[in-house]
Amino acid sequence: MTKPASVLPVTPSDIDQAAQVLAPFAVRTPLLSSPALDQRTGARVFLKPEMLQRTGSFKFRGAFNKLSSIPQADRSGGVVAFSSGNHAQGVAAAAQILNMRATIVMPADAPRSKRERTKGYGAEVVLYDRDREDREAIARGIAGQHGATLVPPYDDRKVIAGQGTVGREIAEDLAALGVTPDIVIAPASGGGLVAGVATAIKARYPQAMVMSAEPDGFDDHARSLRAGKREPHHAKGRTICDALMATVPGEITFAINQRLLAQGVTATDAEVAAAVAFVSRELKLVVEPGGAVGLAALLAGHVDARGKTVVIVLSGGNVDADMYAKLIA
Amino acid sequence: MTKPASVLPVTPSDIDQAAQVLAPFAVRTPLLSSPALDQRTGARVFLKPEMLQRTGSFKFRGAFNKLSSIPQADRSGGVVAFSSGNHAQGVAAAAQILNMRATIVMPADAPRSKRERTKGYGAEVVLYDRDREDREAIARGIAGQHGATLVPPYDDRKVIAGQGTVGREIAEDLAALGVTPDIVIAPASGGGLVAGVATAIKARYPQAMVMSAEPDGFDDHARSLRAGKREPHHAKGRTICDALMATVPGEITFAINQRLLAQGVTATDAEVAAAVAFVSRELKLVVEPGGAVGLAALLAGHVDARGKTVVIVLSGGNVDADMYAKLIA
Repeated sequence: MTKPASVLPVTPSDIDQAAQVLAPFAVRTPLLSSPALDQRTGARVFLKPEMLQRTGSFKFRGAFNKLSSIPQADRSGGVVAFSSGNHAQGVAAAAQILNMRATIVMPADAPRSKRERTKGYGAEVVLYDRDREDREAIARGIAGQHGATLVPPYDDRKVIAGQGTVGREIAEDLAALGVTPDIVIAPASGGGLVAGVATAIKARYPQAMVMSAEPDGFDDHARSLRAGKREPHHAKGRTICDALMATVPGEITFAINQRLLAQGVTATDAEVAAAVAFVSRELKLVVEPGGAVGLAALLAGHVDARGKTVVIVLSGGNVDADMYAKLIA
Repeated sequence: MTKPASVLPVTPSDIDQAAQVLAPFAVRTPLLSSPALDQRTGARVFLKPEMLQRTGSFKFRGAFNKLSSIPQADRSGGVVAFSSGNHAQGVAAAAQILNMRATIVMPADAPRSKRERTKGYGAEVVLYDRDREDREAIARGIAGQHGATLVPPYDDRKVIAGQGTVGREIAEDLAALGVTPDIVIAPASGGGLVAGVATAIKARYPQAMVMSAEPDGFDDHARSLRAGKREPHHAKGRTICDALMATVPGEITFAINQRLLAQGVTATDAEVAAAVAFVSRELKLVVEPGGAVGLAALLAGHVDARGKTVVIVLSGGNVDADMYAKLIA
C-alpha cells in the first residue's frame, strides 16, 4: 500500500510557509500562454517561466527557504553547497540577502556564465573534476572545517518546500482563470522541483497527472517510477542539459514522487535543442537546455496532450551566450 | 493654451472599449520586475514584455481593434497595410482571426523572420524598395483595386486605442501592487504606442512622466516635442532598430503626445545592442532592437531614474536569429 499524501515528507502547508518566507524576495513569475504553442500542439498550454526568477532559475526558491530556516546561532559558519550551476546561484544569492558566507563546489566544466554569476553573488567557488572527484566529500570537508551548513540541492524538506512554491503559484493562477490542469510537467535532476510542484498541484487538483521530464538516457526518474524503487540511469556521456545530470533520484524526493507522479517523460538532445529555438522564436524567452526538456517532450509528441490543458515548467535560463547562439541558429 | 485631455482624439474610454474587444484574443502580458535590473539602475523598474504578445509585438492590439471596427459590409474587400514588419504581422494575424483577406506592403530589406511570419498568418506580401518607392501610394493602389480597407500603422484612433491597452494593463497591475509610477517609457516610430500608453497612464496617474524613446538620429519625437510642432528627423542611413524608422510623428498621435508626453529620450545603436544583450542575459527575454530602445536609454543613464519607479515597455521580440546571435555574443 502506498502512503496517503498527508504523511509524505513535505506537505502543502510546508509550501504555504515557504511562500510566506519567499514573498518579499522571490519573483512571483507569471503563468504565460502562447497562441502559437496552442496551435502547434492542439493543447491549451500554460508555461511557468522560471528563467524570470531571481538568479535565472527556480533554484533560488528552495535555497532561500532552506537558508532562512538555519538557526541564528549557526549562521556565522556560513553555508556550503555543491552544484552544477543553478543551485549554486540560488544559494549564493540567498546567502547574500541573508548576510551569510557561501562556498560553492562546482564542476570545472560547468557553463562559464553559471560560474561567473555565482561569484557575482559574492560566493567563493571551489572547482572539482566531475569524473575523478567526489563533490559531496569536498563539500562535507568544507562544512566540517568552517562549521558551515551544507545546503543539499534537492534531498531536503525545506528545499523541496521552496521549489513547491512554483506549483502553488501555478495552482493559484489556474484557479483565478477557472482552468483545471490535465497534465503538469517539470524537469527532474534530483527531483526536488517536480516533488514540490506535485505536492502543491495534487493538493488542489488531485486528478492532474504530474510528470517528470529528463534528457534521453539520463532517465533515472522514468526508470525509478516504472520500477517502483530508486534506480540509477545508465548514461555514460554528457547531455546538453547540464542541469539535469544527477545519477539517481533523491531519497526524500522519490518518496514523494513515487506517490504523486503519473510517469516520467524524456526528450533527446536534438529535441531539446529544437525546443530551445522554438522558445526563442515563438515565445521570446531564453530557456537553457535543461529548462526546456518538458516542453521538448511535448513538442516532440511524447506526451498525449491533444485537447488537454497542459502546464509546462520552464525551469531556468542560464545558458552561455555562445552555446545559446548555436542552439537558436 | 494646450487642450484639456478630455478633448484629445483618443480617450481613456476608447481604450476601455478596445480592452473589451481584445480580451478574448490578446495575451494579457504580465508586468515583470528584476532584482538585477533594480540593482543596476538604482530604480524600481517594471517591464511590460510585449514580445510575449500574440505575433511577438504590441502591434496585434491596435490592428485587431481596428479590424474589429470595420463594418460587416466592408469586410469582404479585406484589408491592406504597409509596414516594416510588426504591424504587418499584427494586421495579418488579426485578419486571420476575423476571416478577412490581408495584403501587406513591406520593404524588401525587412527582417526575413518578419516577412515569413507575415505570410505564415495567411497574408499576401508585396515587397517595395524602401529608397525608391512610395509604400503609401502602393497600398492605396491596392486598396482602390480590391475595395480593401487601409489599416494605418499608427495614425488612426482605433489603432491608438488598441495600443493604449498596454498602458491600461500597466496601470491596473501597478494599482494592484499599490505602486505609483514616476516615469513610463515606450518606443516611438509613428508614436501610436506611446500615445495610447500615455492616454491610459495619465488618466490614472496624472503626475507620471511619460516619455517616447527613439534611436539616436531617428529622433523626430524628441525634436517635435521640443519644437512644439511635428518635425522630421534628419537621419540618412539605417539603425538596427528597424521598427522605429518613421520620418515624422503622426498627426493624430502627435496631437496626443504633444499634450501628454514629458519629453523624448534617445539611445545609440551600440546602447541598444547592449540592452538587447542585457535583456537576454539578465532578464531571459528575447527583445528586438527597436523594442529595447527605452531600456537602452535607461541603462545608458540618459534618464534620471535613481530612486524612482520606472516602467519600461519592451515593445517586441521579432528579430532574425542570426542578427540576434550577433547581438548577444
